[in-house]
Amino acid sequence: MNPRVLEIESSLIRRVASHRRSTSIDLGLGEPSLMPNPEHFAFAMRYIEAHGIRYTPNAGEPALREAIARHYDYPGMHGAENVCVTTGSQEAMYVTIKTLLDAACDELLVVEPTFPSYIKMARLEGITVRGVAMHEADDFAIDAQRILDAIGERTRAIVICSPNNPTGRVLRNDQARLLVDALESRAGEPIWLIHDEIYREQSFVDDEAFLAERYPHTIVTNSVSKSNALTGLRLGWIIGPQAFVESAIKTHAWLTSCTDTFAQQVALHIFTELTGVNEHVSWYRAQWAGVMEALRASKLHFIPVDGSFYACVRLPQRVGSYDAAMQLIDEYDVLAIPGIAFGDVFDNWLRLSWVAPLDKVREGIKRVTAYVNDYV
Amino acid sequence: MNPRVLEIESSLIRRVASHRRSTSIDLGLGEPSLMPNPEHFAFAMRYIEAHGIRYTPNAGEPALREAIARHYDYPGMHGAENVCVTTGSQEAMYVTIKTLLDAACDELLVVEPTFPSYIKMARLEGITVRGVAMHEADDFAIDAQRILDAIGERTRAIVICSPNNPTGRVLRNDQARLLVDALESRAGEPIWLIHDEIYREQSFVDDEAFLAERYPHTIVTNSVSKSNALTGLRLGWIIGPQAFVESAIKTHAWLTSCTDTFAQQVALHIFTELTGVNEHVSWYRAQWAGVMEALRASKLHFIPVDGSFYACVRLPQRVGSYDAAMQLIDEYDVLAIPGIAFGDVFDNWLRLSWVAPLDKVREGIKRVTAYVNDYV
Repeated sequence: MNPRVLEIESSLIRRVASHRRSTSIDLGLGEPSLMPNPEHFAFAMRYIEAHGIRYTPNAGEPALREAIARHYDYPGMHGAENVCVTTGSQEAMYVTIKTLLDAACDELLVVEPTFPSYIKMARLEGITVRGVAMHEADDFAIDAQRILDAIGERTRAIVICSPNNPTGRVLRNDQARLLVDALESRAGEPIWLIHDEIYREQSFVDDEAFLAERYPHTIVTNSVSKSNALTGLRLGWIIGPQAFVESAIKTHAWLTSCTDTFAQQVALHIFTELTGVNEHVSWYRAQWAGVMEALRASKLHFIPVDGSFYACVRLPQRVGSYDAAMQLIDEYDVLAIPGIAFGDVFDNWLRLSWVAPLDKVREGIKRVTAYVNDYV
Repeated sequence: MNPRVLEIESSLIRRVASHRRSTSIDLGLGEPSLMPNPEHFAFAMRYIEAHGIRYTPNAGEPALREAIARHYDYPGMHGAENVCVTTGSQEAMYVTIKTLLDAACDELLVVEPTFPSYIKMARLEGITVRGVAMHEADDFAIDAQRILDAIGERTRAIVICSPNNPTGRVLRNDQARLLVDALESRAGEPIWLIHDEIYREQSFVDDEAFLAERYPHTIVTNSVSKSNALTGLRLGWIIGPQAFVESAIKTHAWLTSCTDTFAQQVALHIFTELTGVNEHVSWYRAQWAGVMEALRASKLHFIPVDGSFYACVRLPQRVGSYDAAMQLIDEYDVLAIPGIAFGDVFDNWLRLSWVAPLDKVREGIKRVTAYVNDYV
């Protein structure tokens, strides 16, 4: 057996979530609770009725690749040839890491706190991976100088998730400028930026940075999962420079051949419709406003929610997040995700998702507040 | 960049197929030309309308895993825990090879002629892979002794596609018995058998062997792609011993997270329906009979079509299959796949697929016959 597979530990998030009761308030969810727009499915069904469901080219339906490229309109990435359609953003990130890095010599840098996937993917590939922790005193803002200081001789790529899971912080334009200017002034082989844009439509600030707009050695991964409540559809993509995308398509072709034709038609309808990936934006904005109000009223210490659908709250000093999460389920009947799942630097924090109906989220925040107050 | 990705050559099959004209008779197709049963889609749509489309567990919907395990009913592989649902049989095979073999020391053996995927997947993982060629004088029958003779010290797994792509040969019970008896009498770590059953419902012999019925160290990969004309749905699975499947689920979870929920509902309907994966069996049997008649009338030398939806015909002596395929497109307006795509041992052969309407297939066979006769 492959020893790198045997070394993979079971997911801490899933382990904690499995203790949830049927009565529990669920602030653990990593997916929208909205229903998807049935018109997208109706469009895909009409296609299937007329054409059956045959393979598409490995890289995806040309019309969808082109529609995605046009929608994001990143400099130098305007055409179908800049897009590879994948099985969700999970495969997009996996293919990107596997294609971009040479396990024999390259290192991947990951901005922490971080969703654990990137690190586990790199380890499964035998690629050296190192975390660079953002600073708690700055509320874990994405800090370009800290990232630059962490670059080593072997660093070939940096993963940045913005809006961030778990912190909810968004990379700002001033930080992106600092980061890109420094990378461009370096001699030698370029360092690549991988921008995970999965929460792009859940951003609540005005000056968010899109790295692909600023830096030609950027690869973007994304999907319709969060924007359109389509997590189970598994429809994602890679956007990048053509030479990289051509290589990524080869990796993708051997991993999964091509993405579900039905799912591609659903996505094609989204990208050729007026509201498209923005159809749930106003719901998230209203929900966000309600959650902010509840958090302010709670007196909990929380990280500013620039984006994503999470809010992170600080635990009492020296309380480990795993024990806190277990106690919250057992004694307060509320599920929250322990910060330790996202890196050691985040062990004094909990991640609360706020996609459940607002009254449930409010009740969940009340229970977490009660726990924190009872503890003191 | 990953040097193993850069080394991947473009697909010969796709390169040849790209020369096809709109007028060409297409005997290159690797997918059914039938339309899928709309009832499966209607069932999945009702599910989505009621429940949205959320993530399933990594290994797939428990009811689907159980339905698949029950349908095949392999000894020791009866339960949901023996199944991992994947993005088509492509991901099933990729996950199997990546999970089962340690690139540092293990070797994969592949029975040739072979669909090129297995070899390319292993190379992308840095796993040593070696082909064992079946014998042209036996019409490339799957020969257990030749496989056993090829086993080396480092061999840890053997891939057998039966019914075979490209040859159409089916592993028979006597050969399976010989193979399994010899493997079971070996000392030391077991050698695994990976049975690619993708053409299971296109078998036209009575004594086909199912390795998982005979040997506990068998892993089966399959999908609804060929059986139900659902190639574009990307719904496949792995069946195996629980300990292996648990590891495979970890690999699958990091590659693609989980398989499309809509596609899983389509498959659930197939596996809980009466006709299920056999709904196109009678069509294939009738088509096969018509093709056999046309081949016999042609006087071409062809390999007995035990199964699959291909027929392989021999070229004139010393004619290379790539040149022949190009000449067939240019001068006879018919697309056939050159045997060289499936291994050096098959360079004197062409693979003809016979899923197009029967009159087209007959006309295609006529044109190939004309080419062969003109050559002599």
